Amino acid sequence: MTHAATAVDTQCINTLRTLAMDAVQKANSGHPGTPMGLAPVGYTLWSRFLRYHPEHPDWPNRDRFVLSVGHASMLLYSLLHLAGVVEIDAQGRRSGQPAISLDDIKQFRQMGSKTPGHPEYRMTTGVETTTGPLGQGCANSVGMAKAGRWLGERFNRDGQVLFDYNVYTLCGDGDMMEGISSEAASLAGHLKLDNLCWLYDNNTISIEGHTELAFSEDVIARFQAYGWHTMHVTDANDLRALSDALATFQGNTGAPTLIVVDSVIGYGSPHKHNTAAAHGEPLGAEEIRLTKAAYGWPQDSSFLVPDQARTALRDALLARSRPLYEQWNQRLAQLEQDAPQLADELRRMRAGEMPEHWQADLPGFASDAKGVASRAAGGDVLNAFARQIPWLLGGSADLSPSTKTNLTFDGAGRFSADDYSGRNLHFGIREHAMGAIANGMALSYLRPYTSTFLVFSDYMKPPIRLAAIMELPVVFVFTHDSIGVGEDGPTHQPIEHLTQLRATPGLLTLRPGDANETRELWTVALAQTHRPSCLVLSRQPLPTLDRTRYAAATGAAKGAYVLAGADRPEVLLIATGSEVSLAVAAYEQLETEGIAAQVVSMPSWELFEEQDQAYRDSVLPPTVKARVVVEQAGPLGWDRYVGQTGAKVVMNSFGASAPLAKLQEKFGFTVANLVKQAKAQIQLPQHK
Amino acid sequence: MTHAATAVDTQCINTLRTLAMDAVQKANSGHPGTPMGLAPVGYTLWSRFLRYHPEHPDWPNRDRFVLSVGHASMLLYSLLHLAGVVEIDAQGRRSGQPAISLDDIKQFRQMGSKTPGHPEYRMTTGVETTTGPLGQGCANSVGMAKAGRWLGERFNRDGQVLFDYNVYTLCGDGDMMEGISSEAASLAGHLKLDNLCWLYDNNTISIEGHTELAFSEDVIARFQAYGWHTMHVTDANDLRALSDALATFQGNTGAPTLIVVDSVIGYGSPHKHNTAAAHGEPLGAEEIRLTKAAYGWPQDSSFLVPDQARTALRDALLARSRPLYEQWNQRLAQLEQDAPQLADELRRMRAGEMPEHWQADLPGFASDAKGVASRAAGGDVLNAFARQIPWLLGGSADLSPSTKTNLTFDGAGRFSADDYSGRNLHFGIREHAMGAIANGMALSYLRPYTSTFLVFSDYMKPPIRLAAIMELPVVFVFTHDSIGVGEDGPTHQPIEHLTQLRATPGLLTLRPGDANETRELWTVALAQTHRPSCLVLSRQPLPTLDRTRYAAATGAAKGAYVLAGADRPEVLLIATGSEVSLAVAAYEQLETEGIAAQVVSMPSWELFEEQDQAYRDSVLPPTVKARVVVEQAGPLGWDRYVGQTGAKVVMNSFGASAPLAKLQEKFGFTVANLVKQAKAQIQLPQHK
Repeated sequence: MTHAATAVDTQCINTLRTLAMDAVQKANSGHPGTPMGLAPVGYTLWSRFLRYHPEHPDWPNRDRFVLSVGHASMLLYSLLHLAGVVEIDAQGRRSGQPAISLDDIKQFRQMGSKTPGHPEYRMTTGVETTTGPLGQGCANSVGMAKAGRWLGERFNRDGQVLFDYNVYTLCGDGDMMEGISSEAASLAGHLKLDNLCWLYDNNTISIEGHTELAFSEDVIARFQAYGWHTMHVTDANDLRALSDALATFQGNTGAPTLIVVDSVIGYGSPHKHNTAAAHGEPLGAEEIRLTKAAYGWPQDSSFLVPDQARTALRDALLARSRPLYEQWNQRLAQLEQDAPQLADELRRMRAGEMPEHWQADLPGFASDAKGVASRAAGGDVLNAFARQIPWLLGGSADLSPSTKTNLTFDGAGRFSADDYSGRNLHFGIREHAMGAIANGMALSYLRPYTSTFLVFSDYMKPPIRLAAIMELPVVFVFTHDSIGVGEDGPTHQPIEHLTQLRATPGLLTLRPGDANETRELWTVALAQTHRPSCLVLSRQPLPTLDRTRYAAATGAAKGAYVLAGADRPEVLLIATGSEVSLAVAAYEQLETEGIAAQVVSMPSWELFEEQDQAYRDSVLPPTVKARVVVEQAGPLGWDRYVGQTGAKVVMNSFGASAPLAKLQEKFGFTVANLVKQAKAQIQLPQHK
Repeated sequence: MTHAATAVDTQCINTLRTLAMDAVQKANSGHPGTPMGLAPVGYTLWSRFLRYHPEHPDWPNRDRFVLSVGHASMLLYSLLHLAGVVEIDAQGRRSGQPAISLDDIKQFRQMGSKTPGHPEYRMTTGVETTTGPLGQGCANSVGMAKAGRWLGERFNRDGQVLFDYNVYTLCGDGDMMEGISSEAASLAGHLKLDNLCWLYDNNTISIEGHTELAFSEDVIARFQAYGWHTMHVTDANDLRALSDALATFQGNTGAPTLIVVDSVIGYGSPHKHNTAAAHGEPLGAEEIRLTKAAYGWPQDSSFLVPDQARTALRDALLARSRPLYEQWNQRLAQLEQDAPQLADELRRMRAGEMPEHWQADLPGFASDAKGVASRAAGGDVLNAFARQIPWLLGGSADLSPSTKTNLTFDGAGRFSADDYSGRNLHFGIREHAMGAIANGMALSYLRPYTSTFLVFSDYMKPPIRLAAIMELPVVFVFTHDSIGVGEDGPTHQPIEHLTQLRATPGLLTLRPGDANETRELWTVALAQTHRPSCLVLSRQPLPTLDRTRYAAATGAAKGAYVLAGADRPEVLLIATGSEVSLAVAAYEQLETEGIAAQVVSMPSWELFEEQDQAYRDSVLPPTVKARVVVEQAGPLGWDRYVGQTGAKVVMNSFGASAPLAKLQEKFGFTVANLVKQAKAQIQLPQHK
């Protein structure tokens, strides 16, 4: 410590360091070097600045601490331990246990422990977001900062501030290099999010060696170009300089702040400091002894937490945060009195509940052969929901005129640096950051949606996956969902994307077949409390089916249902999305030829698999082996529903640039082909 | 035109503009506004700077023109038309037709035309790379520039320069906002690629409206932070300023160059210029008339190419490039004389041929129960290949110590600004750009490979898809391929990723089961000429199977083969990658219990599907319905091989953070479970 560190400070910092070293050594796996280098940064922030009540880690106005360098998880676990954070689950229930006990630290990276290799949201109290894939935490933090500003606009009244939390993010070289962070930083600067502070661990060491192998940009100049305030602390052990920088951040207005902190990876390790060897493996027993000696720490200690360290950080947090917390509760009580409806809204947001009448005034769509694109129907439905659910908000990666996700009613507004109350979010052409920002907003009581073309789900797969891992009910809207895109050609025509989404655990993939199914499935998506959804919508108009003639669209919520059917079908026609009406047309053609078919609309595999066997058998009768699936997407996975002998009218290649009708003909998405395939199925010897 | 544009220049530029307007109008689909704004930029570059011989568009040292704003495809098609580029296929065969005729332009966006909605490599002569998904072209161009420098180091001798081409990239707001471009630009600056020039179309209009909705960074300052030279041309119609800037680029050394060009989208359109309405839809017949009037163009003309415009651009290109082309051929002849082996190498590279002895000295791996991780075996095999194939080069997104892809032999070197001859590429923590840079290198005669963890294939899916669309034989190495990752937990354990890769058309997914299969499948990957491969490798050691006891590993090249089998198996055990040895152990256990099983190692679905029916039936006998597949990945798609009644020992959820052995037990990847599943399969009534 060069300045301003007391003996207690030093003891706390070395406790954070040695716990990380010991835990990694015991697990024989993990990343000691970054916690060792960053311990003074984490400690300074938590002890002197963070507004965080360790007994109320779910306090809505707590400052957020995001460890974007998720591999340094032991730093977070040690901080939570020293802070004395109590365990509390998502429902606010208290176990009476600490969030992280010393025993938990000893169980680092073991099955079922609260101390997994990377911080996992929901698994450990105090983990604000799941991190590890680099750049995600940075973009999450932008979402949290946006949410903070939005919440402030909504709930702060008459000088009674309920939301003004800050968001602090620890980033590393990887975060700086990943494109998602560039996207997120550019947008944060644009939005002038002065409640956001990134602390960049400039340790100059990455896995392949010195960062000069691949990274020589001027990070500070780059962030200034984004419109950020920047500062440089040249020694991570200089607590005074760190404190000055953090204090400056708190006074900064009009822009987010980047603090570059020069640190030494593996600080204190005589042989491994400042080397890649300190990054991702245990230091080794002997090197740990030597490092502890360098700290003036008992060499033979293990998981040592000195008495002073056990109380200092917790006391500092309590002293600063308890009064703020109590004041906040008074303000909340005042809100309950003055504006009970607003207070109820906040209660629901915290509990993940919808408003009472959230399904009121949903549009119905009358039978219409010409029909409407499901993206357009989706926009109508979304607007109806958004009128009822004030905290439903979102936007697009510069495609809202195409994805039809703009909220158009009075008061929806545009979220901008001039108006943080807006509900239309302009993400710019930044799909990857968009997904992760939505995750950050969902972690902050809001119900966000995003939108772009389905093919560009590729650009945002990492945050979609993390939404699923974190069980966040984000709604990802994807339009232009097939070769129906037409002339834009193969680069814009999704083929494998439905499969990718369906393959992702914990994710709902919903592809409605007409306007009324779109309404039903938007409802399903918003009813989720612990699962993200992908709403997959068409560019082209889809006939609105006559529901007096065919089954009600409510069946869509079961994942699959019999839309039209003969009593004893000879053949099943299974379809999703834009192909449902094609299957209906084939069914009608077959009917005129005296062939009994059954049309199954199957907008969601996941929902269907959740139904009981009897229902599933009623939709897909096991005795009917003659089956045709039609979907303008790749074949993978459909064997499950049509069997090895069923017919798949699908895309077995990339698409092509041409008008839709030509593409449908070329690739066999015609009534004639469906009828032919159905007849061939019935004739198959195995199906007799 | 404010300066320096002759009447002919103006006529050419307006021809480019009106062809774009007319083609989009006729197709009733497309993007007129950007070609209208950028026509002077494209024209100035092509007429005054580009070293490009229209009769030899495959000249290896041609300057590369990358249209990263792929939606502005009509600009490229019109340039190719006016340049009189001749059609020539990938094998160098000439059709005698122009690359783009006026009729081709009239077929814009129609089925099978050479003028698809976005430029498609291989479909149209002169299209250097497939673009449309934003940012990809930018990163491709970095790959092309790296390749140019590498080729120069290898083939330029004694002042006889064979490679010194420049790469020019037209980018838009989307390119600037997408993270992939940030990654690529940062790396290009780091590598001081002074043969690279990006022209940024600063038209301030994106689809949702003015870019100020989401984009207010200082782009020039940002690129300066990356270490680029920057210039600003404040009027896209100022040919002198454009020329000055491009001339300055040609004189710049030590850094790539960004030229920001302020342009007007839909330039000349009285009602739509400078609006989002000019971006992605036809102007309309009346607006086209008005715009043509504004250009002084015959209002009622359609697809008009004035005589002067028909020859001017072509003549300019020929005058500049023909002497250079002839000089180049003389130098090539000299190389053939002085260094025939090097000349033969270049010939092979251009033809996509391997060296004669490319498979010499491949390692064999002796039977070994403890075994070796397939990532480690892969590293050995890669090094053996790389010794024989001088133009095989690649690297990692900062994970080469983990992916084992470093080339370790003398002379392999490190590609850096100080040494462009190196073959180890350090991409930094930039997976997305890495994939697209590899594509750019593959477009430049090289055989690139990349590497990272399988879970991070999510970060680079867009360029993987484009490699498949473009049929580029890039090898994407993905290690740490399952819950075998262990303690790093769910964020680092791929589940759905094998499915995603298998679902992508035109992509080979290869997951070898031991060291010898790894050698066979690396061989398959490198033997591809028109298909990218993903090599999926384990972190953990895999037993090296005793090939005297089990079938030879050469069967892996058929996608699946019988590794061990009873004469009349009662049950099939199908496995891939790290689960193959588990299946073998189960087989042996079953054998001791008198149960006849057959082990099928199935490293590649795609290769297996290419085999004839007889072979496939020999591997998966249709009469044997009792089947168990074991794979530490998601279930989707396996129904195809095990049927609806088969057993799938797979991952049905995300993983967990714990030591591998604990994970295998928890998720059922044990001999005991396989044996149990096999027995249950045999007992199933349907399987009797």
